[in-house]
Amino acid sequence: MEDSIKVAVLGGGSWATALVKMLCENLNEVGWYMRSASAIKHIKEHQHNPNYLSSVEFRVDQLHLSDDINEIVDYADYLIFAIPSAFLHQELQKLTLPLNDKVVFSAIKGIVPEYGLIVGEYFHDIYQIPFDNIGVITGPCHAEEVALERLSYLTVASSDEYKATELAERLSSSYINTKISDDIIGTEYAAMLKNIYAVAAGIAHGLGYGDNFQAVLMSNSIREMKRFIKRIHKMKRNIDDLAYLGDLLVTGYSIFSRNRMFGNMIGKGYTVKSAMMEMNMVAEGYYATKSAHLITANQKGKSKTPIIDAVYAILYQGKDPKKTFSKLTEKLN
Amino acid sequence: MEDSIKVAVLGGGSWATALVKMLCENLNEVGWYMRSASAIKHIKEHQHNPNYLSSVEFRVDQLHLSDDINEIVDYADYLIFAIPSAFLHQELQKLTLPLNDKVVFSAIKGIVPEYGLIVGEYFHDIYQIPFDNIGVITGPCHAEEVALERLSYLTVASSDEYKATELAERLSSSYINTKISDDIIGTEYAAMLKNIYAVAAGIAHGLGYGDNFQAVLMSNSIREMKRFIKRIHKMKRNIDDLAYLGDLLVTGYSIFSRNRMFGNMIGKGYTVKSAMMEMNMVAEGYYATKSAHLITANQKGKSKTPIIDAVYAILYQGKDPKKTFSKLTEKLN
Repeated sequence: MEDSIKVAVLGGGSWATALVKMLCENLNEVGWYMRSASAIKHIKEHQHNPNYLSSVEFRVDQLHLSDDINEIVDYADYLIFAIPSAFLHQELQKLTLPLNDKVVFSAIKGIVPEYGLIVGEYFHDIYQIPFDNIGVITGPCHAEEVALERLSYLTVASSDEYKATELAERLSSSYINTKISDDIIGTEYAAMLKNIYAVAAGIAHGLGYGDNFQAVLMSNSIREMKRFIKRIHKMKRNIDDLAYLGDLLVTGYSIFSRNRMFGNMIGKGYTVKSAMMEMNMVAEGYYATKSAHLITANQKGKSKTPIIDAVYAILYQGKDPKKTFSKLTEKLN
Repeated sequence: MEDSIKVAVLGGGSWATALVKMLCENLNEVGWYMRSASAIKHIKEHQHNPNYLSSVEFRVDQLHLSDDINEIVDYADYLIFAIPSAFLHQELQKLTLPLNDKVVFSAIKGIVPEYGLIVGEYFHDIYQIPFDNIGVITGPCHAEEVALERLSYLTVASSDEYKATELAERLSSSYINTKISDDIIGTEYAAMLKNIYAVAAGIAHGLGYGDNFQAVLMSNSIREMKRFIKRIHKMKRNIDDLAYLGDLLVTGYSIFSRNRMFGNMIGKGYTVKSAMMEMNMVAEGYYATKSAHLITANQKGKSKTPIIDAVYAILYQGKDPKKTFSKLTEKLN
């Protein structure tokens, strides 16, 4: 029986690979765009992605692979973007087909740095996609645990419940539970903000704060996140739900999180530049901090965001991490 | 200058030792009851507790030590109980003095097993102490980090704000921030319930669930805790505050937590009895589970507590951990 909807994943990293694996549990065929032709060749010959989650074996006849983004966009009804936000705009420059007749889901946790927009807003503003055709896929979910088929829960958000349900069904399996939500703005901001709080957790750890303070930081982070999101898009939501608190915790407590690692280096005395060079990449939380700062700076009667403010002061204003966190601790409660 | 109030700590464990250390930062003299005469002798000779937090050095002239509970109760205006709840009732049998003219703070996280009561209720019901003279000291706070003078936050709760403030001032220092609260019932139930959720986290880990599921479990735990406490004592509280969410996280994410370790053994296939024997102690969460179950079982129109129910079924009804958690995962969201 043919698949009733065609779904494609765009991206070649670990989260993209995990999403393709999930979809392969339910669909006869999954579209998959990645820019590396050699990775595609490797997958076709060896049934696994050479660079990410290489323990995951694919059935090649289930994959419609291409390094041509237009081919994959043309192929699919539902597009799931899992390209790091720092490269999204650049990748989309290759696109010659329109996107406005597609359903576009973002599995990207961050800000498009060229525009300072979350991905949903970016697709809406720059590609004229109506909000009813935009969705968000969010955790708490480390891709590595999907590879191991450890039970994970995803939240699939769209203002069109039907579309959220359609995609959630394609992602569900014995090891993936899904939940749908209509809060595309809030879930996407939560996914972005959590990276800032993970940087903060890393800085605290690097400065020698312990587990007691980490709990204080996470408790304050979720309350700050609630205020921040409420200010941007007020609606009935429980901030302790999986897409907000759950997602914050899996990142904030993960010692493997790149954001936390980046923060840890800053706390230990690396400059921002040297930490980035050492890591050979830019942590999402770095851009997120700037965007969050810009958003709050433009608000009248600014909501209280002491954690974001402290991370911004350290990353962008050259403030001393030790002194800045010492002042921050007085503002937490 | 003489201390304006006399404060004593009752208990000889690590949390008691940490509390004495905090008080010594502010008071000329601190009362300290512990039942072991040999430990007292050791402290007097070597300036540290031989059994717990032995890196902490005391000035012996600051300590009013005794293995006679009546002497210490007579000495102090404010009593801080830090005796494990399983031994509290038995220890208090030695008491011949009345307690009803004392201010009694509980730093105990659990249930008095003989009565199935949280400690505040126990002092009120059994010792006729008015609620205005009862308080609670709660984390997030591992004693070990206090020993290292790592910044920690305590919540000091009492329905009498003046008493909470008085004690909070004596506990505050360069490494202890305090916050006061009037929710003695909610903070104490939170401190008890978190141990059940730590057992659940341990069971999940023992069964092979990963970090993604741990975040799901903690997110569901805080929502379940909110429903549970609201049912018992409805008042305005933010469940994401330190005394609730903060305390849950520091315990639920601690690999050193005895409750988590106990759960982990159950998840790995130990019987309850063999896990207790192996640990050579009873985890607080074991009693807490029974009490929480009794409370919900007696409620009409029972609030939804799937996590407590699952832990109870495993610990007290001999249900299989794997099957029980598999069913539980369907109820979480």
